[in-house]
Amino acid sequence: MKIAIYPGTFDPVTNGHLDILDRAVKLFDKVIISVARNSTKNPIFTEDERIALLKAAAKKYKNVRVESFTGLLVEYARSKKATAIVRGLRVISDFEYEFQMALANRRLHEDVETVFLMPNEKYTYLSSSIVREVARLNGNVRDFVPPIVRRALKKKLRAGGSSTNA
Amino acid sequence: MKIAIYPGTFDPVTNGHLDILDRAVKLFDKVIISVARNSTKNPIFTEDERIALLKAAAKKYKNVRVESFTGLLVEYARSKKATAIVRGLRVISDFEYEFQMALANRRLHEDVETVFLMPNEKYTYLSSSIVREVARLNGNVRDFVPPIVRRALKKKLRAGGSSTNA
Amino acid sequence: MKIAIYPGTFDPVTNGHLDILDRAVKLFDKVIISVARNSTKNPIFTEDERIALLKAAAKKYKNVRVESFTGLLVEYARSKKATAIVRGLRVISDFEYEFQMALANRRLHEDVETVFLMPNEKYTYLSSSIVREVARLNGNVRDFVPPIVRRALKKKLRAGGSSTNA
Amino acid sequence: MKIAIYPGTFDPVTNGHLDILDRAVKLFDKVIISVARNSTKNPIFTEDERIALLKAAAKKYKNVRVESFTGLLVEYARSKKATAIVRGLRVISDFEYEFQMALANRRLHEDVETVFLMPNEKYTYLSSSIVREVARLNGNVRDFVPPIVRRALKKKLRAGGSSTNA
Amino acid sequence: MKIAIYPGTFDPVTNGHLDILDRAVKLFDKVIISVARNSTKNPIFTEDERIALLKAAAKKYKNVRVESFTGLLVEYARSKKATAIVRGLRVISDFEYEFQMALANRRLHEDVETVFLMPNEKYTYLSSSIVREVARLNGNVRDFVPPIVRRALKKKLRAGGSSTNA
Amino acid sequence: MKIAIYPGTFDPVTNGHLDILDRAVKLFDKVIISVARNSTKNPIFTEDERIALLKAAAKKYKNVRVESFTGLLVEYARSKKATAIVRGLRVISDFEYEFQMALANRRLHEDVETVFLMPNEKYTYLSSSIVREVARLNGNVRDFVPPIVRRALKKKLRAGGSSTNA
Repeated sequence: MKIAIYPGTFDPVTNGHLDILDRAVKLFDKVIISVARNSTKNPIFTEDERIALLKAAAKKYKNVRVESFTGLLVEYARSKKATAIVRGLRVISDFEYEFQMALANRRLHEDVETVFLMPNEKYTYLSSSIVREVARLNGNVRDFVPPIVRRALKKKLRAGGSSTNA
Repeated sequence: MKIAIYPGTFDPVTNGHLDILDRAVKLFDKVIISVARNSTKNPIFTEDERIALLKAAAKKYKNVRVESFTGLLVEYARSKKATAIVRGLRVISDFEYEFQMALANRRLHEDVETVFLMPNEKYTYLSSSIVREVARLNGNVRDFVPPIVRRALKKKLRAGGSSTNA
Repeated sequence: MKIAIYPGTFDPVTNGHLDILDRAVKLFDKVIISVARNSTKNPIFTEDERIALLKAAAKKYKNVRVESFTGLLVEYARSKKATAIVRGLRVISDFEYEFQMALANRRLHEDVETVFLMPNEKYTYLSSSIVREVARLNGNVRDFVPPIVRRALKKKLRAGGSSTNA
Repeated sequence: MKIAIYPGTFDPVTNGHLDILDRAVKLFDKVIISVARNSTKNPIFTEDERIALLKAAAKKYKNVRVESFTGLLVEYARSKKATAIVRGLRVISDFEYEFQMALANRRLHEDVETVFLMPNEKYTYLSSSIVREVARLNGNVRDFVPPIVRRALKKKLRAGGSSTNA
Repeated sequence: MKIAIYPGTFDPVTNGHLDILDRAVKLFDKVIISVARNSTKNPIFTEDERIALLKAAAKKYKNVRVESFTGLLVEYARSKKATAIVRGLRVISDFEYEFQMALANRRLHEDVETVFLMPNEKYTYLSSSIVREVARLNGNVRDFVPPIVRRALKKKLRAGGSSTNA
Repeated sequence: MKIAIYPGTFDPVTNGHLDILDRAVKLFDKVIISVARNSTKNPIFTEDERIALLKAAAKKYKNVRVESFTGLLVEYARSKKATAIVRGLRVISDFEYEFQMALANRRLHEDVETVFLMPNEKYTYLSSSIVREVARLNGNVRDFVPPIVRRALKKKLRAGGSSTNA
């Protein structure tokens, strides 16, 4: 059985993440989508909230599990007997950072392969930080995240703010 | 009448920004150069100071207005009946970030077009952060900003500092 | 006599830095490897510790000196009568930032040339921040830094932490 | 009156080109879409055919004219009293080549500005050469070009071929 | 059973290609490495020779098949009931071209996923065209290709040439 | 004595090449600028003409020699006892190709270092191919090449042509 880990911060999960997940579940027998604990300083959503949103968003997949992890990604992947780590590679993205992490991970444990998938080009611009920024400015995130995340963002950000997205 | 918004942080305005402005005023009937409020954590200049410096630096243009804005850029642009958002695209620049913001803005409101202009290649290296860094290290910013900004930087940074630009 | 400055934060020095140093000593009569003071907010190692580690790591070279500097890099280089500033250019790296700094430095003083060297491709992924991250997660940094740095990292990070590298 | 030139080879015109045209006509009072004569060695369509296809594809715009030109683009633009040259800037594209040509053109005549517009992200992958390749392999170009171009391609390539698109 | 196609020109197969193949065979139940027919104008090796070299180089894998194909890659992949198309993504590579082809292929048939794998960083510089160039200049290709390809190159190029690799 | 090779096609030498040469002569005791023989299919200038133009353009430097070479660049560099190969790295340039060749050369002979220098940013757009293109379209190449090259181009291209630079 081929198992893949799809790691990330998912603060919050976007339609772009779900597009990658949808591709990964066709390639692997089981996909573990896993929230990296403590990886960001001031997340909007707590770890538990992010896991809950991921579970809700991915509930239609039988071969997907949602978890969280701490420590080195490759060691976590190994402990799960994963064959692969899945990463989305947007045309606009931190491409070089992805490669740097993939190479460093490989140097640490050669036996877990990083597999890059491309989301639909309509998600080219989409990232969790864009979603957070638009939500903070009271913009409509309908095209960016599933409805459950949109409602959760609204609740969180009710207080509102007054920055800009220039 | 074709109106364009030229948004930014302008902390402070540089010769590179003014080069772009000079090109935009030939393309549009009116250009609104607009300071994004609350967009940076610890600006050197207050919003009012940045607006004052921009007004001084752009005073030779009859069809330029200086403003500030808050909230979503596209909604601000719409409220001004702008046809276009102008962005400088340096050969060295956060190119992908510019594209990401342009695409996200377009997704939010399809009717405002982002127009990219190239500054003179002699401003390839120039950004507000380079200016702040050189000024903090007591370097000469004469080639980087108009005289009025140079004097304002001197006044602000009189206390000096002792970091490096390696 | 051709003197080159190899400036950096070196928090900590990596095998990639030493690979560049090894190339630079063949090109120049003297290389001054110099720690940029106050250039990072929260370094792992103090300036004195970084200098000591560099001295230990570079002690086999007769024509290498370890120093620190503050203020504008080009003015420091000039004060040392340096012909060149050496920078490593990894395939994966902040390539554009390197160019921006090189151009800004040149604009400040035209007479110091920035020379870019390529480290061995096996260091493509390597940076001080990757080293710090892997060390913090209790990963093995044996392939990344010289033994003396590895021991120093261990001592520093004994307390450990619990973030991730996703 | 602000006139813009939209130059290209247009062998053949694609939906991506038409997307850029659609944006340009909102920004300028008049757009001259102009076929660069003799710019490719072995075009699929003759210059006259390309002009005819462009005229058919752009006939809904009152302020668009289709022409061809030879010689230096900037001199042609000047002879048309154009304020701007319009270029599409796809996320995936010969970005650096576009900049190089824009800078070289500007050096030749400072008074014509190059304006970069972004097509819809769904045309990220699209270029005339992809269209020609897919058409030659008997693939369906329905999503790539307007119907009239599709019919013209079919007629041209009836003989068929046997290469690949790996 | 998950089947993947690894398409290419393979003129000739390099150690970089074999590194990717080695990773692909761990991810998929069966890998079909397939020579794109007629995809280059003047190949060094005929299609049959390239297939023979691939077969020799990949003979240690039980789940690898060597074939050739013509026409649209996605239609070939479909006819083989492939789940995925495998492509190597070198840090130095025609990255954007790879993405463009992947997106165009996806637009033609949504059901075949392109999967990008990274070869070992020591193959960063390696491509079939580098191999051909070095071989033509009588350089030693020992580090670049398997022994059987090296011998085949020697035989082919015995006549030699006199160009350069500047 | 530190010797550097500055190799290229130089069809023809541009002001950008001369800018790099000017930097290299300050870094090395001797610079050999060397024309790669047979490296282009249809050069405008013959090898002898290119050497003659380089000699005229570089005659003010006492420590510069003009030569030509054939075969592997690293073997030529070795035969000249060169410490370094000098390459210009424009912000806009075939950056990845430069890296690929540098890495492949290094793999062939580890003892010759490739050193990258940046030309003045005003040559960002400049390449021999731009010069040839502008000259063919009867544009003024005064800002691009030294006077002697401009005269040589005029003589060569008297017949003229009628392509475009779109």
